[in-house]
Amino acid sequence: MDGPVTLINVFTVAPENQQRLIDLLTEITERSVRHAPGFLSARLHRSLDGTKVTMVAEWRSRADYEAMRADPTPRPYLERALAIAKFEPGMYEVAETFAPPGAAAGSERPHVPR
Amino acid sequence: MDGPVTLINVFTVAPENQQRLIDLLTEITERSVRHAPGFLSARLHRSLDGTKVTMVAEWRSRADYEAMRADPTPRPYLERALAIAKFEPGMYEVAETFAPPGAAAGSERPHVPR
Repeated sequence: MDGPVTLINVFTVAPENQQRLIDLLTEITERSVRHAPGFLSARLHRSLDGTKVTMVAEWRSRADYEAMRADPTPRPYLERALAIAKFEPGMYEVAETFAPPGAAAGSERPHVPR
Repeated sequence: MDGPVTLINVFTVAPENQQRLIDLLTEITERSVRHAPGFLSARLHRSLDGTKVTMVAEWRSRADYEAMRADPTPRPYLERALAIAKFEPGMYEVAETFAPPGAAAGSERPHVPR
């Protein structure tokens, strides 16, 4: 598997800890994760019901992501996050991409039925 | 809540049904969901371990998404999907966006500490 991978990591949290978890994950990503080789982009999402925080991150390859996870630097932050949240990780490849009908050029590659 | 929302819907599935679930969700999105007012974009993800399929979709507003969910057209597809998968929905707003150091212009808005 040499292509790009997308990590979709869902954290479940008590609503009173949602902002603290966002702050922790922002700090870990800003200081450490985004500097790792092969990091392409990430978005951190706040659920409207207060009970989830989900990070969607794109990496150049699975090997790049695994090298970052082997680095001890982010671990103390992750441990603080896991003290207040349940973590459900997922490693994916993109299967399909969809756009509205007549979407302007500049959107991502259109869906092509296979 | 008038701003854009991101739906991150995680489907858990037996690996032997993963491709069938991808086909069903592709069909529902291609034929119905992407034509709904306010649909901005979506990506369908296949977990490398075979046990998950996750849709990440951006909508112009929560009201647009809820209007689509009230439309009966996609329901038969969704019911077929739910016959083979467990569905964990999540509705989010983007809290933070991250880029690698020195990312070129054209990436999404950079992270600005608050």
